[in-house]
Amino acid sequence: MNKGRLEAFSDGVFAIIITIMVLELKIPAGNSLKSLEPLLPVSFSYAISFIFVGIYWNNHHHTMQAVKTVNGGILWANMHLLFWLSLIPFATAWMGENHFSQFPVTLYGILLIMNAVAYTILIVQLIKHHGKESVLAKAIGDDRKGKLSILIYTTAIAASWINTNISIGLFILVACIWFIPDKRIEKQILK
Amino acid sequence: MNKGRLEAFSDGVFAIIITIMVLELKIPAGNSLKSLEPLLPVSFSYAISFIFVGIYWNNHHHTMQAVKTVNGGILWANMHLLFWLSLIPFATAWMGENHFSQFPVTLYGILLIMNAVAYTILIVQLIKHHGKESVLAKAIGDDRKGKLSILIYTTAIAASWINTNISIGLFILVACIWFIPDKRIEKQILK
Amino acid sequence: MNKGRLEAFSDGVFAIIITIMVLELKIPAGNSLKSLEPLLPVSFSYAISFIFVGIYWNNHHHTMQAVKTVNGGILWANMHLLFWLSLIPFATAWMGENHFSQFPVTLYGILLIMNAVAYTILIVQLIKHHGKESVLAKAIGDDRKGKLSILIYTTAIAASWINTNISIGLFILVACIWFIPDKRIEKQILK
Amino acid sequence: MNKGRLEAFSDGVFAIIITIMVLELKIPAGNSLKSLEPLLPVSFSYAISFIFVGIYWNNHHHTMQAVKTVNGGILWANMHLLFWLSLIPFATAWMGENHFSQFPVTLYGILLIMNAVAYTILIVQLIKHHGKESVLAKAIGDDRKGKLSILIYTTAIAASWINTNISIGLFILVACIWFIPDKRIEKQILK
Repeated sequence: MNKGRLEAFSDGVFAIIITIMVLELKIPAGNSLKSLEPLLPVSFSYAISFIFVGIYWNNHHHTMQAVKTVNGGILWANMHLLFWLSLIPFATAWMGENHFSQFPVTLYGILLIMNAVAYTILIVQLIKHHGKESVLAKAIGDDRKGKLSILIYTTAIAASWINTNISIGLFILVACIWFIPDKRIEKQILK
Repeated sequence: MNKGRLEAFSDGVFAIIITIMVLELKIPAGNSLKSLEPLLPVSFSYAISFIFVGIYWNNHHHTMQAVKTVNGGILWANMHLLFWLSLIPFATAWMGENHFSQFPVTLYGILLIMNAVAYTILIVQLIKHHGKESVLAKAIGDDRKGKLSILIYTTAIAASWINTNISIGLFILVACIWFIPDKRIEKQILK
Repeated sequence: MNKGRLEAFSDGVFAIIITIMVLELKIPAGNSLKSLEPLLPVSFSYAISFIFVGIYWNNHHHTMQAVKTVNGGILWANMHLLFWLSLIPFATAWMGENHFSQFPVTLYGILLIMNAVAYTILIVQLIKHHGKESVLAKAIGDDRKGKLSILIYTTAIAASWINTNISIGLFILVACIWFIPDKRIEKQILK
Repeated sequence: MNKGRLEAFSDGVFAIIITIMVLELKIPAGNSLKSLEPLLPVSFSYAISFIFVGIYWNNHHHTMQAVKTVNGGILWANMHLLFWLSLIPFATAWMGENHFSQFPVTLYGILLIMNAVAYTILIVQLIKHHGKESVLAKAIGDDRKGKLSILIYTTAIAASWINTNISIGLFILVACIWFIPDKRIEKQILK
């Protein structure tokens, strides 16, 4: 089966998720510079999630470039990833509106883990379908970046019981690791 | 006429329907784990509908793969399906916020039937356009899965007068039946 | 210039417009059948607008099939049409929530005229670009359906001062006229 | 890497941004013509932003036509542009609801500058990837229109401390300058 519509549908869901988060930036009552102040934590939360959804889209884009066809299992693995991504706007708003207090940060971390797991499942399904000699399989290898991310997320969740600033710092660390789209795939395609 | 834009437009509507449902997960007032508790039924309702819309997208995707061209009748049959799908976020939220009480569950069941009927009409239009010897016609056959689903939905609606848990169980049963995208089409395409 | 992205962007806007209207179906407070009653006018209003946006999408789809390339003027004529279409959810909700009272129905009629005018401008731009001997020019001819629609809309607006039921009836009449996608284009393409 | 999905994803985000702004047109309580009056500033604000987002889409469309492939840097430069664009609905609503008072207009101006800067970064990334002899590089040249826009925006922000009507006038002036999609690219492609 052709991968075209899976990409188009996913692009639509990605585009909506990344954009509806901004609806949580509620218009302030006043018209002074000061009236924007309470929006700062929500804006910061929005910016972090924008980058995370952006990273997922970038990686999805890179991964699907290395893919030729899809099957039923891949469609559902993709749908499963979109489900967890669709919860990010909720967790983002809860975290921002509660000024990065403990439970919301914990939930955010758990959600990031669920997304990482869902992405791994998608990759596994794709490699199963394309074979161990495929471009994708070689590019992913033993997926050290994926495993490292889940380790850092877990640390961040634990750290949220001590100081949520550490957790946020660790989330940003993962974002930095993934900021550069998967060069591994670009390299393998060029070979 | 080319099927490309019908797919693109439908993908857009599917993507929005599946994503705006999450807006019903209202940000809780507190920041404790306990403050998430009232969201449980709405989240469960969201998960069920996510799967149902996912199933419709998967089947739509599979069906359109077997389709070559479209006509005016097919465009409207598709629009009709999208209309009933667009009401799912409303029914989902009503059902979740009322903790799966009787009338909301009944309405949800009726909506699932309307969607199943609309999908059948789309299939009928497609087969009329492509002929009885087409891949699609052979793949669908006498559409036993479709008929069985409507039967289970009807039972679920009746059961909602006794115990809505039975209804929810039956909805999930239908989801399981359809979880695997229409293998019938994959088989026929490969022939 | 290629028409691909104009279609993709328009499909996105159409899909969002047709879907966000459903957000006006506010979840009722109660869980009885009776609590759905106040939603009836809004639902009816939604159904009418769904059909109108559906008609515009169908015609846009048919028109663009007959089009080969686009230019700057066409991009803006299309954007202008999308602007008026984007106001339909607002007018739909206002009309539904006020039980089809006079001013909201008048506004709805004016909006339908603005859309019809914007569509005509798009067609004129397209024909100017493709020439009088083009498939599109022949298919549209002297655009009797377009002119008739504007006439009926005007009558509906005038009638809203007497009885808005007449106006709604006239809106539905226009919908019936356009329900069948532009056969004129299908015929010309087949020639 | 192929540019197809970057275009599709961007089209999705553009379509959502331009459409969700209309959700700020809150349904008025009354049903008289007078009850629409308070919506006038918000509607005017909406119209201005619709044109600005429309201009960005048009230019994005023209620019990507001259582009053959993309790389990781371009994906992020594009994401960065979409981030600033996604804040336009917020600034639009704040400006409209506060009747174009000073701070909201200042913020709107700052946002327009951020968008202009983000667009310039995207162009720079694209030219770096395609070379100085590329169609795009020749079409953009020394980017006088871009520099002039930022100059006018800065003037508009300064003017907002004196009279915001001047600022709005200057915003509209920039819109007029960009109204015609980048003829420079059309010319270079035809060569």
